Amino acid sequence: MKSSLVSSKNLIRLQSAISRSFLQHSSKPISQTPFFIPIIPTNTINLYNQRYQNLQFQIRSNSTSIMSSSAFKPEQARLPPALPLPSPPLTKFKIGICQLAVTPDKERNIQHARKAIEEAAQKGAQLVVLPEIWNSPYSNDGFPVYAEDIDAGHDASPSTAMLSEVSSRLKITVVGGSIPERCGDKLYNTCCVFGTDGKLKAKHRKIHLFDIDIPGKITFMESKTLTAGETPTIVDTDVGRIGVGICYDIRFQELAMIYASRGAHLLCYPGAFNMTTGPLHWELLQRARAVDNQLYVATCSPARDTGAGYVAWGHSTLVGPVIWRSPSHN
Amino acid sequence: MKSSLVSSKNLIRLQSAISRSFLQHSSKPISQTPFFIPIIPTNTINLYNQRYQNLQFQIRSNSTSIMSSSAFKPEQARLPPALPLPSPPLTKFKIGICQLAVTPDKERNIQHARKAIEEAAQKGAQLVVLPEIWNSPYSNDGFPVYAEDIDAGHDASPSTAMLSEVSSRLKITVVGGSIPERCGDKLYNTCCVFGTDGKLKAKHRKIHLFDIDIPGKITFMESKTLTAGETPTIVDTDVGRIGVGICYDIRFQELAMIYASRGAHLLCYPGAFNMTTGPLHWELLQRARAVDNQLYVATCSPARDTGAGYVAWGHSTLVGPVIWRSPSHN
Repeated sequence: MKSSLVSSKNLIRLQSAISRSFLQHSSKPISQTPFFIPIIPTNTINLYNQRYQNLQFQIRSNSTSIMSSSAFKPEQARLPPALPLPSPPLTKFKIGICQLAVTPDKERNIQHARKAIEEAAQKGAQLVVLPEIWNSPYSNDGFPVYAEDIDAGHDASPSTAMLSEVSSRLKITVVGGSIPERCGDKLYNTCCVFGTDGKLKAKHRKIHLFDIDIPGKITFMESKTLTAGETPTIVDTDVGRIGVGICYDIRFQELAMIYASRGAHLLCYPGAFNMTTGPLHWELLQRARAVDNQLYVATCSPARDTGAGYVAWGHSTLVGPVIWRSPSHN
Repeated sequence: MKSSLVSSKNLIRLQSAISRSFLQHSSKPISQTPFFIPIIPTNTINLYNQRYQNLQFQIRSNSTSIMSSSAFKPEQARLPPALPLPSPPLTKFKIGICQLAVTPDKERNIQHARKAIEEAAQKGAQLVVLPEIWNSPYSNDGFPVYAEDIDAGHDASPSTAMLSEVSSRLKITVVGGSIPERCGDKLYNTCCVFGTDGKLKAKHRKIHLFDIDIPGKITFMESKTLTAGETPTIVDTDVGRIGVGICYDIRFQELAMIYASRGAHLLCYPGAFNMTTGPLHWELLQRARAVDNQLYVATCSPARDTGAGYVAWGHSTLVGPVIWRSPSHN
């Protein structure tokens, strides 16, 4: 079994210098460390905010002024709810991105993931990210068989029980990739985030199902077995505010913009791009999300297995938002 | 004088297959030719539209229902005004992207641009795009000296007078790069679009001024002399609906999204990235805008002149939205 904890390249120091500011509700950058000179000049950002707030929030301001005596609270129409913009709790920390090999043996997948997480924590990772569908082969045949009832927990969900135990024992945050989730008669592609106390902090169900048909290249219809999630997921952790997406979710810029506007420091996308979409889009989308929204983007893929029915692209990555660091600040 | 009409690489057949649909007000893709299989499966797009329209337009629908008897017309708060989504008037046409060398001699710059446009038209271009600041050196010292009163026209603006004459004579659409514009006591970085009848169809003033300071690498403050434009610019031409941005405007995803939501087939960004930002962002931003918004993106830079005070990156490019073309449809 080829497997790897991506250690040297992907166990990277995350420097949480956030210069993102546009599209946020405040017109001021929320935080800037002295380590970076952002490529976006601040005065332009402020001009920009002013301009686009007028454009984009005109409707709200109109409504509010006219309806000020009513109980009209348009912000409540948004999910997830608005949170105060955070300062990063840490300015530097390590992320372990575990590009796991996945087998048809679920118990083995769980043991293997546990070991990889432990190894990452030993190397200093305070946040560990797992791949999309790491406890099951990525296939419509596999999803119903390997699915777990996450809400029931314990024996009904051995994969997330392991994640809870290990995050608590190692005092780390875990963005637990994704597993097939059974909820009533529906199946979801679901990512669980566990805090350093082992508690489930957030559960993201993949919003954009991957239905693709490029004859001779790649055909896959997640919608054959899976139901789409309906809600963006953003969560405060000990290492910062994290927006979660799964694989094809990264294709849609609006989701990342929602997260940025809600104060995310980091976006985590467990994702199994394939040998067609991987070389075409994987790096492009990560870099675009990071630069456009001025935040960090971490992706974690299953290890490539050319013998599998669906061959993952691999190339788990961490992308930073700032393209230039002043030598004098190193 | 090194100069070039970029002919072989950038005089490209533009196949106006548009599969963009999300973020538009209609939930249906506006047009799909049989030439491409878009990477976004249509059923996912539709799910997505449905979901995000709920999220994003909640405020409007609330307001409308509550205030249905009033004259509340939130759409009027938006600029540019809504237009019906267009089908592309052409399914294939050629774009000429003229990567002009720029000298301190304005008259020479104008003659050179005219020749390049004529050469592009001779080779079949129905749309010609020029670079940012093609009639003047790119410098704060130059802008006030080379600026023209575009609204006064004729002798007050020999650069745009030439563009009008040549577009009319050759029956082509010209996205006229940009020139320094004087309007009252203000200066703008302005792009004029001329139709096949030689009439000025649109005038875009650069919205996001480029103020940058990376010590030892690149320092430039457009705001020292220029005033920022305030309005996105989208225009119907004989070759399709074009959204216009200038250089740093491409850095801001929201502008491209506004254009996409207004039915643009093509975004044109005359732009003079430099030797620092060019290799870092130029290609990334173009590809991201094209993929994210499912439209074509054309950029036109001045030719690189390593002797100039500001050295342009060059690399004028046309990017298409669709990453996969079925071999059977070639």
